[in-house]
Amino acid sequence: MVLCPGVPPGVVNIVFGSGPRAGEALVGHPDVPLISFTGSTVTAQRITERSAPYCKKLSLELGGKNPAVIFADADLERCIETTVRSSFSNQGEICLCTSRIYVERSLYPEFLQRFVAAAKKWKTGVPSDPSSNNGALISKEHLEKVRGFVSLAKSEGAVIHCGEGVDRLDLPEPNRSGYFMPTTVISGVSDTSRVMQEEIFGPVTCISPFDSEEEAVSRANGVRYGLSATVWSRDVEKVHRVAQKIQAGLVWTNCWLIRDLNLPFGGMKNSGVGREGGKDSYHFFTEVKTITIKH
Amino acid sequence: MVLCPGVPPGVVNIVFGSGPRAGEALVGHPDVPLISFTGSTVTAQRITERSAPYCKKLSLELGGKNPAVIFADADLERCIETTVRSSFSNQGEICLCTSRIYVERSLYPEFLQRFVAAAKKWKTGVPSDPSSNNGALISKEHLEKVRGFVSLAKSEGAVIHCGEGVDRLDLPEPNRSGYFMPTTVISGVSDTSRVMQEEIFGPVTCISPFDSEEEAVSRANGVRYGLSATVWSRDVEKVHRVAQKIQAGLVWTNCWLIRDLNLPFGGMKNSGVGREGGKDSYHFFTEVKTITIKH
Amino acid sequence: MVLCPGVPPGVVNIVFGSGPRAGEALVGHPDVPLISFTGSTVTAQRITERSAPYCKKLSLELGGKNPAVIFADADLERCIETTVRSSFSNQGEICLCTSRIYVERSLYPEFLQRFVAAAKKWKTGVPSDPSSNNGALISKEHLEKVRGFVSLAKSEGAVIHCGEGVDRLDLPEPNRSGYFMPTTVISGVSDTSRVMQEEIFGPVTCISPFDSEEEAVSRANGVRYGLSATVWSRDVEKVHRVAQKIQAGLVWTNCWLIRDLNLPFGGMKNSGVGREGGKDSYHFFTEVKTITIKH
Amino acid sequence: MVLCPGVPPGVVNIVFGSGPRAGEALVGHPDVPLISFTGSTVTAQRITERSAPYCKKLSLELGGKNPAVIFADADLERCIETTVRSSFSNQGEICLCTSRIYVERSLYPEFLQRFVAAAKKWKTGVPSDPSSNNGALISKEHLEKVRGFVSLAKSEGAVIHCGEGVDRLDLPEPNRSGYFMPTTVISGVSDTSRVMQEEIFGPVTCISPFDSEEEAVSRANGVRYGLSATVWSRDVEKVHRVAQKIQAGLVWTNCWLIRDLNLPFGGMKNSGVGREGGKDSYHFFTEVKTITIKH
Repeated sequence: MVLCPGVPPGVVNIVFGSGPRAGEALVGHPDVPLISFTGSTVTAQRITERSAPYCKKLSLELGGKNPAVIFADADLERCIETTVRSSFSNQGEICLCTSRIYVERSLYPEFLQRFVAAAKKWKTGVPSDPSSNNGALISKEHLEKVRGFVSLAKSEGAVIHCGEGVDRLDLPEPNRSGYFMPTTVISGVSDTSRVMQEEIFGPVTCISPFDSEEEAVSRANGVRYGLSATVWSRDVEKVHRVAQKIQAGLVWTNCWLIRDLNLPFGGMKNSGVGREGGKDSYHFFTEVKTITIKH
Repeated sequence: MVLCPGVPPGVVNIVFGSGPRAGEALVGHPDVPLISFTGSTVTAQRITERSAPYCKKLSLELGGKNPAVIFADADLERCIETTVRSSFSNQGEICLCTSRIYVERSLYPEFLQRFVAAAKKWKTGVPSDPSSNNGALISKEHLEKVRGFVSLAKSEGAVIHCGEGVDRLDLPEPNRSGYFMPTTVISGVSDTSRVMQEEIFGPVTCISPFDSEEEAVSRANGVRYGLSATVWSRDVEKVHRVAQKIQAGLVWTNCWLIRDLNLPFGGMKNSGVGREGGKDSYHFFTEVKTITIKH
Repeated sequence: MVLCPGVPPGVVNIVFGSGPRAGEALVGHPDVPLISFTGSTVTAQRITERSAPYCKKLSLELGGKNPAVIFADADLERCIETTVRSSFSNQGEICLCTSRIYVERSLYPEFLQRFVAAAKKWKTGVPSDPSSNNGALISKEHLEKVRGFVSLAKSEGAVIHCGEGVDRLDLPEPNRSGYFMPTTVISGVSDTSRVMQEEIFGPVTCISPFDSEEEAVSRANGVRYGLSATVWSRDVEKVHRVAQKIQAGLVWTNCWLIRDLNLPFGGMKNSGVGREGGKDSYHFFTEVKTITIKH
Repeated sequence: MVLCPGVPPGVVNIVFGSGPRAGEALVGHPDVPLISFTGSTVTAQRITERSAPYCKKLSLELGGKNPAVIFADADLERCIETTVRSSFSNQGEICLCTSRIYVERSLYPEFLQRFVAAAKKWKTGVPSDPSSNNGALISKEHLEKVRGFVSLAKSEGAVIHCGEGVDRLDLPEPNRSGYFMPTTVISGVSDTSRVMQEEIFGPVTCISPFDSEEEAVSRANGVRYGLSATVWSRDVEKVHRVAQKIQAGLVWTNCWLIRDLNLPFGGMKNSGVGREGGKDSYHFFTEVKTITIKH
């Protein structure tokens, strides 16, 4: 237990520990009336089940399989720079990372070539090297899981344009056994593939062409997640129309991860329950009481 | 499926059926994104567990073990009339019914005597008899469950002042095999008894004296439920102080079940999650989306 | 006094009369605690002064000198159709009518030619003729006032492209003495002219070219009014950027006069005080009271 | 002009000066779009008139003639202590000060005697004397105005129980020419007297008995002001009923001047327009813009 300076003792307590030990104890304790959780959908399911006997309030910020929908009239330079960043930041280990890139067919060849070129410059290296963009993944198990998705894609006939199995990382001797993985761009994966349906949470992104706005929206929405999305177009009507049709709690148009803490933050569908930020957080942490005074 | 007149087809659909068949099918269906449920805490637990894989929004209005806290300065006439009504209306089969009556000790003897007298006048009979206040319970199983609580109280040494096992109902011949149960008042039950801890959902209420405000609040809060409560006193400070200390989503002072649909409605603790009414309902049935437009 | 069906007697009363007689009596009466007024800025000034001794709440929806800012990438067909409508609807006697049209220079020649052609088709005629778009102005005095602005423009060197002094109305004999005025388009007026600064409230609009976004915004904002504006562009960034910079309570982009009664409605600067609609109206007609209960 | 540390230069500017010079210049300046004013109703009237040509938003916190309504069942000790404080704090020069005390007739004799005794102990003296409760009034002119109200009351047959003309202040030699005035309690003034209708803004309060709740409410509301009021009773129904009937933006029950900055603050009737605090202040200082994007 750790006390926060400036807050009365007991108001904020921080318990360090693993999910199975510390997490379960909190989730299953009758005196913990609410749980605000950020993590995986699988863990959220377990939290929901374990807390069910206690009618706990839950705020769940979970996984995503976030699409980028890129139209031919997008500002290509800014779009590529941002989409590389939105795909690979923090080794792709951010729930808001882009992992499915849908590009209007007329733009597709140029986009693919320039995106792969830019992805190759997104350098995986040791943190002490100031030119590194990414570092190692969180664990050996996770590295293997991410690599497994690349193998699966390959076995399904996909093209690996760069990264895993294509590029060799140039790491200092002592770091070669670390859980580093190169920035990986894949095309030719079917929407129904697990690679396009499940959260990979690694430096891997898939690119695919589309022919119409309706198709793009439908494919963007064709997963069980609904956390975030990006839309790229200069056209004011298209931007607003598509942003409204996409099933995601957070839609960024011509940008990514600009966040105002006063605005609702969170996902639809299997990406979560509830919203954080501003009034939503205030409301979540408050137990409302209606008192009626007869007079 | 039934269509509601005035609402576009498909907006409102009503599915009739039992919990295990119709309920489970809805709860476990991936295309049903939210569930607003009014019923028992046990069923809510099952709904929560079954819907856990789908991250559904839940609004749960569940059971209660609702206390009345009655101070010696209460308007006794109005208090007794209302508390009989709040205890026995609809055979006690309302989640908001009073089932634990705490009375300040100096008032206790008079209250008990007058309350029992009034309860005896709350008539259980057939619906076709206009003088009937209550009818039959919902099922044979439920009647037996409610009777079981009275037997348990008796076996624990409680006094049954009227009703079950004391008074005989005067019913027409064809109705004698119905699930009728007389209005029952019990005293002398320990707060730790299942009779004082569990929701009985029948025409049964328990009365107990208290000595101090602190004791009354502590005992009122000493159950896992927190749906509603009533507070009876003429003293403005006491009324506000006690109403604020009682753990219940709904507190009525010197009255019962006055409801404005604009005000939040729902319970704390095991009595539910979320509130219905006004902005809360609007918010619950809305999926908030944050769209960021770069400019 | 007239009673409204469905509302308790006395809640809504309608007093017919002129401003100097009925209006002044209401405005200066101590028992009328608030005034919601829609009309001219000059009358609002008088209302404010006359009600000053009584601390009345005022909601004022006043005049406008509403700009249209039209960029070269606008959807020209829709823009011209809508801007003719926004300029001339109801003979220009709507506070929300466009009266200053700023067009990006590269588009200006084509816009001017097509806009004048469309304006000429906006027919002024008798109401019994189904092909009429406009009817007569409200009074002889007002017709003379509106004509005076056209004369002033002419005397300052402006070009009258169509309408007053250029086109002759083809009216039935009995209507020729009515207060009809043809749809009038003017160019070549300086922004500092009274024609570009004052509300004309007639079927008269002025067109002028601009060279940069900054210039357009600055000129759009260069009047004492701030009621409404339209912005025309396909560019999502430009639309949002310009809409935010324009000083007007209501900005329509690529459209005009689409109104949702839940949204705030009203003007900045000399175009009014307060907003109508949704929560704002509810708030205006409510007198808030803070009651503190000691406990 | 003074800059506030921590706020960007230009955001907050403080102009020192008198009303006729600095105030008028601000109020009549076209570039000052809103005015939040705390002061007298007469000055507010001037501000409203002078700003009328510019459609300025006004938030006005003005004078009061605040009643205390004291029922026979009040907690007398706390009531007298608080009402002396609410009447005389800061020499009565607070807009929220009590100046009309209505006491239920059965309590009146005892209340009057104990209140006068307590008022006499509320010491007027020099600020360097730690036993002083009050100091001097703001100016010679104001002292004379306040004394004038006491003379008027006397000439109308009122009884001056203590203070002006009755008690002599014991001040150090150098302070004897200061604008000090003793704490003054008056009874026997008619409700229609200017003494009971106008804001005195000095250490003067009037006491009067009442016979019924209706009478008390009616007399409390019988002035053109509606800033604040206090209600004293132990009875929960009476407290809520009377608090709701009194025409005042702020009602304190069994207390005075407890303020939460999140709650609306301000007066009804001639005591002001608008409310300060929380969302109201936020709303007042914001100019709402409705932007409609066509898509």
